[in-house]
Amino acid sequence: MQNFTFYSPTYFAFGKDQENNTGKYVKRFGGSKVLLHYGGGSVIRSGLLDRVKKSLDAEGISYVELGGVKPNPRSGLVYEGIELCRKEGVDFVLAVGGGSTIDSVKAIAAGAVYEGDFWDFYQGKPIDRALPIGTVLTIAAAGSEGSPDSVITNENGMYKRGASGEGIRPTFSILNPALTQTLPAYQTACGITDICAHLFERYFTTTKEVEVTDRMIEALLLTMIHESPRVIADPDNYEARANIMWAGMMAHNNSCGVGRSQDWASHDIEHELSAVYDCAHGAGLAVVFPAWMTYVYKKDVMRFAQLATRVWGCQMDFTNPEKTALEGIEALRRFLKSIGMPSNFAELGAKKEDIPHMAHTACYGDGRSGRLGGFVSLDEQDVTKIYELMV
Amino acid sequence: MQNFTFYSPTYFAFGKDQENNTGKYVKRFGGSKVLLHYGGGSVIRSGLLDRVKKSLDAEGISYVELGGVKPNPRSGLVYEGIELCRKEGVDFVLAVGGGSTIDSVKAIAAGAVYEGDFWDFYQGKPIDRALPIGTVLTIAAAGSEGSPDSVITNENGMYKRGASGEGIRPTFSILNPALTQTLPAYQTACGITDICAHLFERYFTTTKEVEVTDRMIEALLLTMIHESPRVIADPDNYEARANIMWAGMMAHNNSCGVGRSQDWASHDIEHELSAVYDCAHGAGLAVVFPAWMTYVYKKDVMRFAQLATRVWGCQMDFTNPEKTALEGIEALRRFLKSIGMPSNFAELGAKKEDIPHMAHTACYGDGRSGRLGGFVSLDEQDVTKIYELMV
Repeated sequence: MQNFTFYSPTYFAFGKDQENNTGKYVKRFGGSKVLLHYGGGSVIRSGLLDRVKKSLDAEGISYVELGGVKPNPRSGLVYEGIELCRKEGVDFVLAVGGGSTIDSVKAIAAGAVYEGDFWDFYQGKPIDRALPIGTVLTIAAAGSEGSPDSVITNENGMYKRGASGEGIRPTFSILNPALTQTLPAYQTACGITDICAHLFERYFTTTKEVEVTDRMIEALLLTMIHESPRVIADPDNYEARANIMWAGMMAHNNSCGVGRSQDWASHDIEHELSAVYDCAHGAGLAVVFPAWMTYVYKKDVMRFAQLATRVWGCQMDFTNPEKTALEGIEALRRFLKSIGMPSNFAELGAKKEDIPHMAHTACYGDGRSGRLGGFVSLDEQDVTKIYELMV
Repeated sequence: MQNFTFYSPTYFAFGKDQENNTGKYVKRFGGSKVLLHYGGGSVIRSGLLDRVKKSLDAEGISYVELGGVKPNPRSGLVYEGIELCRKEGVDFVLAVGGGSTIDSVKAIAAGAVYEGDFWDFYQGKPIDRALPIGTVLTIAAAGSEGSPDSVITNENGMYKRGASGEGIRPTFSILNPALTQTLPAYQTACGITDICAHLFERYFTTTKEVEVTDRMIEALLLTMIHESPRVIADPDNYEARANIMWAGMMAHNNSCGVGRSQDWASHDIEHELSAVYDCAHGAGLAVVFPAWMTYVYKKDVMRFAQLATRVWGCQMDFTNPEKTALEGIEALRRFLKSIGMPSNFAELGAKKEDIPHMAHTACYGDGRSGRLGGFVSLDEQDVTKIYELMV
């Protein structure tokens, strides 16, 4: 195991009706003038935004609003939010929504207290300082509610980049599984895929002797495999939603990723897809991950066989571990299909002729060095071949 | 799943040589005058205390020392520490040692800023405020490095009680697995047992639909079963020590215990043993847990069968789940024996004639209501029978 530090000081309030305590938590953590950030119609239609406002009013907390966050959140709205925070003297930002809204509010929080262009952070500058952040989560997916990460699409060229830093870990996050019950099945499945992807990115490591984090990742994947069909079959299943929601946070706050190298090439490869076609990130990952696995599994057949047996319940073929490894990848494909995820470019609306552009941008765009991934180091040619496996 | 809140703001620095950064962390978290609290000879002999002092000196942090913490830490030393903190104007407490030293420093930290008797907290008053606490951990066991709990033995009657509260969660904890390599095998095994016990206490629940936390608990138990024989066979196995150390923290910071009822009767039953005979807490738990399981398993045979199959690798007997449940308990007995733990009163140095006193004190001592445990509610007669199973 490698040396590491781990710091996850987010206060989580989990369960039914917790959003009614939003105002109390803003107050407890020192907010008095809030930026209330959200997406489109669903948080308004469902009455959630009104309940949150009511809880702020009850504590005498004033707020300014900025709606309009889209999936794959854009840089333009971030600049708008930063200006608004400065003009209004905002001292606390609050996201009501999913990963996109939370990522957008994180960028605003960091940019509002930074003299330069907030995009600097998305080119590698760590975020040490930001306005304090609260979240009311409406989809189990990105894990942004408990992570120090944010991904934004730069509208000047339409490409996605991530930023990171302890400054943007939420101060508090409210997780009410009931708020996710109104999600369409497709969005629920995209969230499930994103959660599994966060686990795979951590699972595929070159670090030896990481039994504790291996087992924790496997535990969270087993949970996802158990709960996902239940929630797809019955969207109102609160208990299945609850298990998925806590798994989604644990999958990405890094308690199961410490002390080991991680991969993350698949996320980089997917980001080109959702930047170019504006598809859902989870849907893109559903197409990317089986292809990536198929391309790289020979690097460590036994690790893939371990995943196949411990998580997918495959029988280990002791005379032919490669067969077991491949069965595990097939089991993942079947699982993704069963929850309604796309499996190739056509189903995603992606085009073969864009592959050269995407492979180049993934590897070299915006100052990148040309190589992706910690488990297997991929160059532009490798990335091209992985995209070709998705056609 | 039940509603819950979860807040674990401890900063963990994990790995080789991390103790040399102690001074830096004390400074980062605002300490300038430190109480340095430790036990006996081993931290001195190993040179650890000197390294910690050197790192404090390097940051210009002054300190006063209070050594002499014993296993099953006593109230007398706590009073001494509180007085010393007040007299010297201490603003940060630092434990260098295992769970006993950390629990002792937590009591001191809470008592130093409280006008009444610190023992109030050990009679149920929650600890909201305390001096900030740092720890340099020397044994993977109690999980106190990441928990809001502390257990102290009251010398006025020799009984143990626990206190809890967010005020005593450590601000930072330094976990260097190499520091545990010099432990005698017996102490290592006691630590292993304590970690497993923290997982069992959470596993046995009456809350339905807790797949995510079930799976996480099982993951940590599987880790312990894999790593423990390796570390007992080879005390210098850093990697096995590292996996156990992170599992020990995760077992007790409650991320795998949220949203579910827990049991904790076995801890209460054990506390009488270590209070009366001053045996190691882990050794006491090794005797208590199989007896408790044998007494209560009929409450939920399928949960015991689940543990047996998922964790101990027993084959599920679908025509007779009770047989599988009992096989799991036997597997635990074999595991504990294999790492050198005692299995009965005689091996622990406990006496049958003390059972009535211990059963009564466990249930009624110091204002208790007469019943123990969240999974099965036990009265004095039940507790008596459980002690009798250990003879």
